[in-house]
Amino acid sequence: MGIESKGSFTLPGEAGYEALTLKMAEKWGADVIRDSDGTKLSDEITKAGYGIYSTICIIRSDNAWAKNNMDKLQQNFLMSEPVIAEDTTVVIEPLKGYFRQQFILNKTDDPKEFWQVFNRTTGEEVPLDQWSFDPESETVTITGAKPWHTYTVNFLAVRIWEEISMYNHITNDWGDKEHLMATEPRHPETQENMLLWLENWCKKNPDTTVVRFTSMFYNFAWFWGDDMKNRDVFSDWGSYAMTASPLALRAFEQEKGYKMTSEDFVNGGEYTSTHNVPTKKYREWMDFINRFVVEFGKKLIDLVHSYGKKAYVFYDDSWIGVEPYGERFKEFGFDGLIKCVFNGFEARLCASAQGVEAHELRFHPYLFPTGLTGEPTFAPGGNPKLDASKYWVNVRRALLRKPVDRIGLGGYLHLVEPFPDFCDYMEEVADEFRLLKSFNASCEPYTIPGKVVILTAWGSLRSWICSGHLHEHPEVDLTNILESLSGLPVDVAFMSFDDVIEKGIPADAKIIINAGVANSAWSGGDNWKNAALKAAVTKFVGEGGGLIGVNEPTAVVDNGMFFQLSNVFGLDRDLGTKKCLRKYKFEVETDSFVLADTPDFAASMKPVDGIYLKKNGVKVLGAKDGVPVITVNEFGKGKAMYMSSFRTSLEATRYLLRAMLYVSGAEEMMEKYICKNMYTECAYYADIDKLVTINNTGDEQTTEIATEKGTVTVTLKPFETVIQ
Amino acid sequence: MGIESKGSFTLPGEAGYEALTLKMAEKWGADVIRDSDGTKLSDEITKAGYGIYSTICIIRSDNAWAKNNMDKLQQNFLMSEPVIAEDTTVVIEPLKGYFRQQFILNKTDDPKEFWQVFNRTTGEEVPLDQWSFDPESETVTITGAKPWHTYTVNFLAVRIWEEISMYNHITNDWGDKEHLMATEPRHPETQENMLLWLENWCKKNPDTTVVRFTSMFYNFAWFWGDDMKNRDVFSDWGSYAMTASPLALRAFEQEKGYKMTSEDFVNGGEYTSTHNVPTKKYREWMDFINRFVVEFGKKLIDLVHSYGKKAYVFYDDSWIGVEPYGERFKEFGFDGLIKCVFNGFEARLCASAQGVEAHELRFHPYLFPTGLTGEPTFAPGGNPKLDASKYWVNVRRALLRKPVDRIGLGGYLHLVEPFPDFCDYMEEVADEFRLLKSFNASCEPYTIPGKVVILTAWGSLRSWICSGHLHEHPEVDLTNILESLSGLPVDVAFMSFDDVIEKGIPADAKIIINAGVANSAWSGGDNWKNAALKAAVTKFVGEGGGLIGVNEPTAVVDNGMFFQLSNVFGLDRDLGTKKCLRKYKFEVETDSFVLADTPDFAASMKPVDGIYLKKNGVKVLGAKDGVPVITVNEFGKGKAMYMSSFRTSLEATRYLLRAMLYVSGAEEMMEKYICKNMYTECAYYADIDKLVTINNTGDEQTTEIATEKGTVTVTLKPFETVIQ
Repeated sequence: MGIESKGSFTLPGEAGYEALTLKMAEKWGADVIRDSDGTKLSDEITKAGYGIYSTICIIRSDNAWAKNNMDKLQQNFLMSEPVIAEDTTVVIEPLKGYFRQQFILNKTDDPKEFWQVFNRTTGEEVPLDQWSFDPESETVTITGAKPWHTYTVNFLAVRIWEEISMYNHITNDWGDKEHLMATEPRHPETQENMLLWLENWCKKNPDTTVVRFTSMFYNFAWFWGDDMKNRDVFSDWGSYAMTASPLALRAFEQEKGYKMTSEDFVNGGEYTSTHNVPTKKYREWMDFINRFVVEFGKKLIDLVHSYGKKAYVFYDDSWIGVEPYGERFKEFGFDGLIKCVFNGFEARLCASAQGVEAHELRFHPYLFPTGLTGEPTFAPGGNPKLDASKYWVNVRRALLRKPVDRIGLGGYLHLVEPFPDFCDYMEEVADEFRLLKSFNASCEPYTIPGKVVILTAWGSLRSWICSGHLHEHPEVDLTNILESLSGLPVDVAFMSFDDVIEKGIPADAKIIINAGVANSAWSGGDNWKNAALKAAVTKFVGEGGGLIGVNEPTAVVDNGMFFQLSNVFGLDRDLGTKKCLRKYKFEVETDSFVLADTPDFAASMKPVDGIYLKKNGVKVLGAKDGVPVITVNEFGKGKAMYMSSFRTSLEATRYLLRAMLYVSGAEEMMEKYICKNMYTECAYYADIDKLVTINNTGDEQTTEIATEKGTVTVTLKPFETVIQ
Repeated sequence: MGIESKGSFTLPGEAGYEALTLKMAEKWGADVIRDSDGTKLSDEITKAGYGIYSTICIIRSDNAWAKNNMDKLQQNFLMSEPVIAEDTTVVIEPLKGYFRQQFILNKTDDPKEFWQVFNRTTGEEVPLDQWSFDPESETVTITGAKPWHTYTVNFLAVRIWEEISMYNHITNDWGDKEHLMATEPRHPETQENMLLWLENWCKKNPDTTVVRFTSMFYNFAWFWGDDMKNRDVFSDWGSYAMTASPLALRAFEQEKGYKMTSEDFVNGGEYTSTHNVPTKKYREWMDFINRFVVEFGKKLIDLVHSYGKKAYVFYDDSWIGVEPYGERFKEFGFDGLIKCVFNGFEARLCASAQGVEAHELRFHPYLFPTGLTGEPTFAPGGNPKLDASKYWVNVRRALLRKPVDRIGLGGYLHLVEPFPDFCDYMEEVADEFRLLKSFNASCEPYTIPGKVVILTAWGSLRSWICSGHLHEHPEVDLTNILESLSGLPVDVAFMSFDDVIEKGIPADAKIIINAGVANSAWSGGDNWKNAALKAAVTKFVGEGGGLIGVNEPTAVVDNGMFFQLSNVFGLDRDLGTKKCLRKYKFEVETDSFVLADTPDFAASMKPVDGIYLKKNGVKVLGAKDGVPVITVNEFGKGKAMYMSSFRTSLEATRYLLRAMLYVSGAEEMMEKYICKNMYTECAYYADIDKLVTINNTGDEQTTEIATEKGTVTVTLKPFETVIQ
């Protein structure tokens, strides 16, 4: 194994800053230079002997064509604001409240073919002959309405500003720069133009070695409101909400024999969030879109390949339909997958995807003046070195478990100039990355035997992610669990409820985790009405498995229970209908294996109102405000642990490790290649007999590690990596 | 109007303490002496010239007969502990975990006629031929069970210890005193014996002037567990759970043509709590039981009357089926209704019942060593004077609004001897009661025009009460609201959802309050799926009414909403499925009429997780932990206010008054017969031109009161009543 002293690093170059570009390429050991949305590379850069990544966003690449083909822009369903009838006639302005620079009404297709009007008081659809659309006033008039009932209109909106471009434009104050539009690739004419454009592009960019698609065709859902203080009407990293178009809707119906209605997308105003339990029909639609994206996407990739260039895809932005964890992903023929990362779970998300040769992480902070939530980064008040070090500590531990091939940055390189400490730090990070890569390139680290199964409605399709970044929805317990797991020496598998029902729980599964709020895709909602699912998980515990339930596991109101495995947990949640029923009293047992390193962990947890013990003998390891927050019930040969919440931290990660070992009866595993000091972690590569220990804190740490050859003591400088 | 200097007071006498009895009768101005459960009156007392109340509890009155008729004891359905099958055969011990001194199995009737076995994993009933009951081992064996599914047995249990007697026996350490049993009056033989026993009793108790029934036949639900640390398996003041018997079940089926099953009572283990939304079938059963209780009860009362005695009934204990707010109540022919009270709403509950001449309050503390929650009262460490003063302050303000006729005490009089301060205080209270009674006996106090409608699933049948005492379920928002309302100058009406659907909202209604957690009888659960109900309340607000929703008003998941009137409130609760949807940002407006007296009220409230604004323009009057806790939305000509919680206090009461005036557009009503100082309240009796002002605190208070004749200033000593 050779340690690279340079390479595996993608640098964002910038025309007009050629000297800086080449200086930083040298400093960070870049082997590749890329452009970004809003930057270009000059000849001086592209001819400097580096590999060249060029980003293209095919759907917004030919705006002149888009302007001449406004009937071929992307569309989606929206729900109007609810209007309460005060009389029998109701007038609704569908677009009211939406960002008019993003949406216009589809006036081309017959509204009666796609739009629907609902009485949201009765839940009934208003018959087509009781409403009409006036294209001039852009209003829908309902007649024969029931006074004091609430009405909404589901309608097709055409999008006139591609969302990522819109976000970048507004964030970077691009003023009167042209608004790019997203074209709908399902039109044959659009496909023809895209192929033509791409061919021309390949011809015109002979220096480009890698075409980086950003990404394929459909962005994650991002509907904006016209009140900029409340911009996100709907925003979900994994939703297919923006894939609807008359063409796709008709093709789906023709193929399946039944149609996707507007309401299948609008869903009473909740739309189709990845966090919610998907319907069978919605999953069929996803599959239908995925098939199209792969089929037409492959043509583009083949074209790129025919010019001797590689094709990489960005696992964000317009990634909808790409599905790197779907069965068809390998059919694209992509050479690389690039994921932007803040956290360890995102590194695992990229690293574990099959069907590409190169896995590349795009680090944060992005070289933009501000971050995703508007905070300053490369701007006065920002501290990009601090940001970068936090992200690197998150990511490094994940890379010890599962390697990636490359790292890189994105954005405007000139912004780094006032931050020399950031530039120095990135040099260290790049060197450290290359060192770690050299270790785990050849073999896998020691892992505790047995699988940890994450059980959700999505299963493996949403491996290593819920939806979006941790900081966007820090309250999602499972995202936090994935983050903790991302650097732990355990073998994580992702299963759906359907998988369990169809195939059962694999024999090598030792632990099942079901975590989330009721009716989320993560907890499972109505899936828990399935008796086969309940019996399978009960059997798993009864026969010696360890079950960990977080927040509202297995929850759906049925059979007098809320947690459907309440008899396995020995505990349930009273939603208010059980106030007259017995709730067992308890005392907290603090002396436990689980809390040995983190005795005060319960104090950091968020209790769930109404949690109560259903039976005697349930151990309460923690309580808050009088409510149990950590419990264990022994059932059969196994154990079921309940936790009211999970928020990742170094302490939480250690707690989770111990909890998993405890419920699966593998406590002795703490004595093998696990750092005694929970602020450090290690990975042991048996094949090359190397022990890598990392310090996850900004303080010096000393730890003992029990190995097969005896106990090793390691002292680490702040954030240091030590190799023995 | 004459002020009584004595009378209207019922004293509990005690044989063996004759001198004390007569001394206290004189001191407290008693006109009546009563016995209690566990005490007797001697001739020296009964011949002393006082009216004599004698308590009888007809169902436990002839224990010798009961012991000879064990097949005629009362019964009820219980659900066994859930058992998870580990094989295809499951053995369940139905009584496991229940208090064996309360319950035995019904082995007389064929279990296959009444018992049911359920697979609680599938929700399916296990066919009768797949289970068998062995009377010897007292177990049910299920064959052909599905491994890892959960099973329970619903079974008929016979009660062998009447619950109030059991509670008194254990609380007062009655040792080997005989356990009294409750007989089932539906058996003709039981009825015959009860009538015979009562006739004999009347003959033997010539001095008794009033027979106080305690109460009729069926106690509120009270199932005990064998683990005394977790005694209450199920406890509900208003549940008909203890009315089931083979005889009643068969009679119901014969009359209705369909049967009440065990599951109608067991309800998946939740039983039939008054706090939960009742089914139509359960209400039919209640009606069926009520009809029987009135029919046979009337025979007993007629018998009492035939001996020249009056018949009073105690509105607690075995009151199930009596229903003082039911249509049949007047048919009993009772002369008086007695209610034990801790709070103002209980005084109103007693005072407003129709169909009796005398309304009597039994004050707390009860003359027992300990109170209902086991705290010392008339025992070392107790402070009965303090207890009594707190209760009197609660009750006095309610009596200003609606009078009762009598007050009294219960229990063991000898216990008061070590507490002379209590004895002195009760003398003051009795005098003050008689004074107040003299005022409102002849006319009604000034009341703000327009009705306040409390909208629940029970409507008027549960006027002025949810279920049980405030201290038992202090988290029930509506009980707290009733307590605040009990002394406010407003006209309160109770309506059910069915009332609104059938009859609409009365024209004089100004305010509707819907308060409670989702799926409670108070909030309404599935009732809110009814479009006519939703439209009626929406119309009410649209046309100028004021709606106050508390905690989870109008809540049931339907049509993409949780609060079904979320578009009227302008707000909804995200249960976790709307995390990707827009939530309007807000700023708290502190300067409002509503909070003028209690600017910090929001800080005392309990926020409801996930409350979010659905639209712009909703006023947020208070927020906590970033979540709105008080909001107002103007809709049409009216207003809808949301409050996350309501816990009664003097401040909360004032807040509620202002909130009601605000949402109904009647702010100017604050300027008429309302004390400026919120720690005081007043009642103005126009017919006799008397203004009564009370101090609800232990501190001196001064208040201004705007009257039609100008502003009056009153200074009140601690707890004082001032009459002008």
